[in-house]
Amino acid sequence: MNSEIFDGSVTSPKGFRADGLHCGLKDEKPDLALIVSDTPAAAAALFTTSSLAAAPVVLCKKQIDSGVAQAILINSGNANACTGEQGMQDARQMIQWTAKALHLVPDTILIASTGVIGHYLPMGIIRNGIARITSSLAINGGERAAEAIMTTDTRPKHRAITFDLQGVPVSIGAIAKGSGMIQPNMATMICIVTTDIAIKAHLLKNALKRVVNGTLNALTIDGEMSTNDCFLALANGQSGAPKIESKNADYETFEKALHQLLLEMTLLLARDGEGATKVITITVREASSEQDAKKAARAIANSMLVKTALYGQDPNWGRIVSAVGSTGIRIDPNGFEIKIAGINVARDGCAIEYDEKKMQHALAETELSIDISLNCGSFTSQVYTCDLTHEYITINAEYHT
Amino acid sequence: MNSEIFDGSVTSPKGFRADGLHCGLKDEKPDLALIVSDTPAAAAALFTTSSLAAAPVVLCKKQIDSGVAQAILINSGNANACTGEQGMQDARQMIQWTAKALHLVPDTILIASTGVIGHYLPMGIIRNGIARITSSLAINGGERAAEAIMTTDTRPKHRAITFDLQGVPVSIGAIAKGSGMIQPNMATMICIVTTDIAIKAHLLKNALKRVVNGTLNALTIDGEMSTNDCFLALANGQSGAPKIESKNADYETFEKALHQLLLEMTLLLARDGEGATKVITITVREASSEQDAKKAARAIANSMLVKTALYGQDPNWGRIVSAVGSTGIRIDPNGFEIKIAGINVARDGCAIEYDEKKMQHALAETELSIDISLNCGSFTSQVYTCDLTHEYITINAEYHT
Repeated sequence: MNSEIFDGSVTSPKGFRADGLHCGLKDEKPDLALIVSDTPAAAAALFTTSSLAAAPVVLCKKQIDSGVAQAILINSGNANACTGEQGMQDARQMIQWTAKALHLVPDTILIASTGVIGHYLPMGIIRNGIARITSSLAINGGERAAEAIMTTDTRPKHRAITFDLQGVPVSIGAIAKGSGMIQPNMATMICIVTTDIAIKAHLLKNALKRVVNGTLNALTIDGEMSTNDCFLALANGQSGAPKIESKNADYETFEKALHQLLLEMTLLLARDGEGATKVITITVREASSEQDAKKAARAIANSMLVKTALYGQDPNWGRIVSAVGSTGIRIDPNGFEIKIAGINVARDGCAIEYDEKKMQHALAETELSIDISLNCGSFTSQVYTCDLTHEYITINAEYHT
Repeated sequence: MNSEIFDGSVTSPKGFRADGLHCGLKDEKPDLALIVSDTPAAAAALFTTSSLAAAPVVLCKKQIDSGVAQAILINSGNANACTGEQGMQDARQMIQWTAKALHLVPDTILIASTGVIGHYLPMGIIRNGIARITSSLAINGGERAAEAIMTTDTRPKHRAITFDLQGVPVSIGAIAKGSGMIQPNMATMICIVTTDIAIKAHLLKNALKRVVNGTLNALTIDGEMSTNDCFLALANGQSGAPKIESKNADYETFEKALHQLLLEMTLLLARDGEGATKVITITVREASSEQDAKKAARAIANSMLVKTALYGQDPNWGRIVSAVGSTGIRIDPNGFEIKIAGINVARDGCAIEYDEKKMQHALAETELSIDISLNCGSFTSQVYTCDLTHEYITINAEYHT
């Protein structure tokens, strides 16, 4: 497959317009985003598994049922979570206003919210915001939408990928937010994907499910999962490429490109993890089962001790081993092997000599790897995370409700 | 039961001597501790469930099998973990040297180690240390032992409790270490209990198991569990009180007192959690099962976002709810209730008004509570933790191997 990732967004695929603006939920920053397809699109989504899913999540799950949608409205600054029946009414109202302004049926509007939990939405502000944003949509508005969905993110995240389907150029675009509260289980707080490919909704959903495992669901910043996580996708077919109606070669090409794009988004999210100075790729090999491999990788990725050690640029493999051991999974105590930043630090379950200067140079880099072989089987798992820093504490201790 | 906790230690019960000294594993601080009973004692223990238990843990598990022991040797500064066959030999050698110096059979010596993982013990230093410490034991040496088992602890932890068994005054003493890497599953890095009560070994073990759930196992500092955690107990019968040979009234009295003492030790450990400025007691009520209650309590206790919010003195109950929701357990979205520091902040699943000034005063205290009722049943769980601070990051980023 000949594909290229570029600095695009959800408006890179044909037939999408978007915008992001400040409506007043936050002090000054953009806080309302809208993405609209010119024509009805196949729609699919994945949602947080939280038992306290927010009102927009509950509602969006219903909206997506038909497999067709045309617009996605997202606000930041207020999660509309733990807001009871009032929250549900407010979410429905947002859909009504958006549908009316866009001259669409309410069934085709998806919504998402992110921000503080437990506060009712100021609906007057939202109403004005919807009136403005529905009249300012632009074919280059995707980056503004990416900015408007940010919470503690320090920069907007957006990319697109372009490739051919049977000679026809097509593309997929993405925006995402979420620099804290990211845990492998759903994904990120919010990720929106658009494409001008034509595909059946159930195949689109199938692709989302498949790619999310090795990408968004393989990312953990702080082991937290939110009430509002969602991953929404619209496919409007405006490229003119033949519609994907089965798991044919085109489907495979699409899935591969989607995976490539989402892996890139995952790394963007990891790099912007709250307070992060380093992105860490953790690979567990030779586990006796897939579950063991995953458990071990996540235990390392969520270990505060491992994350602070890498922040301190210390190759403390004892903490890596301790994290793996604490899961109770199978590991050969006399056969495991560990590499940090590509340098072997333990073999046959014991410390080995390594070049300390080389290690210090390697640990000063901003992209690091941890690689552990358990010597118990043939299963592998890879997870992405970042280090844990003073800045993480500052951000989260000073974020006031 | 008429009982009193006092500022004692493992040498408070009759017939125990101890010491702690600097043998050279650490730079200057005490790093070797020995606790000896004048007579053979009933012995019981609980160990880490890590699949990479350290050599001393593996060996100690065998040693304790007989149910009799007379001495416990503990070093800090080096965990003797991930040290392969050499580590096992070194641990056995430590037992041999201690037994010889004390004129005891090796079978009655228990050992424990704590400190850096993956380094071989410098056995010359250990040998000299054992020679010195076995000749300096004292009936008031328990506090020195408490000091010698410290790693990143800022202060030694030791307490004792005294009460009567059928009119005979008896006591239980304890020392413990572990201010990071504490997770409900085993307990603390190391906790040693001594008593002059006479009790059958299996009843002693039974008591350990029972009390540990609501105390040491209900403590989490950073969600980590170590390769070296152990909880060892010796009961030498020197008080002269009638031997406990069944689960009679005396057993109940003993278990209650042990619980009281370990709860006190648990709070000492929480207060000295790495970088902690606040001890937090988390209570989950009205869960639909015991497992749900525990899961929810631990999720809150291990949530970096909850812990940083309390450090920042922000009553961010959204993060509490988010942590509970992420476990997927049953919670009534329209019926849960949350109190922070005794002040109601959410009811019927929604935010409620509260006195902000009162809240700010309450959050400035060093001991805080989080109380959440799920409105799904009748099960309760309580867990202890501390806040997550800049100082935690400093301690763990600067701790070099």
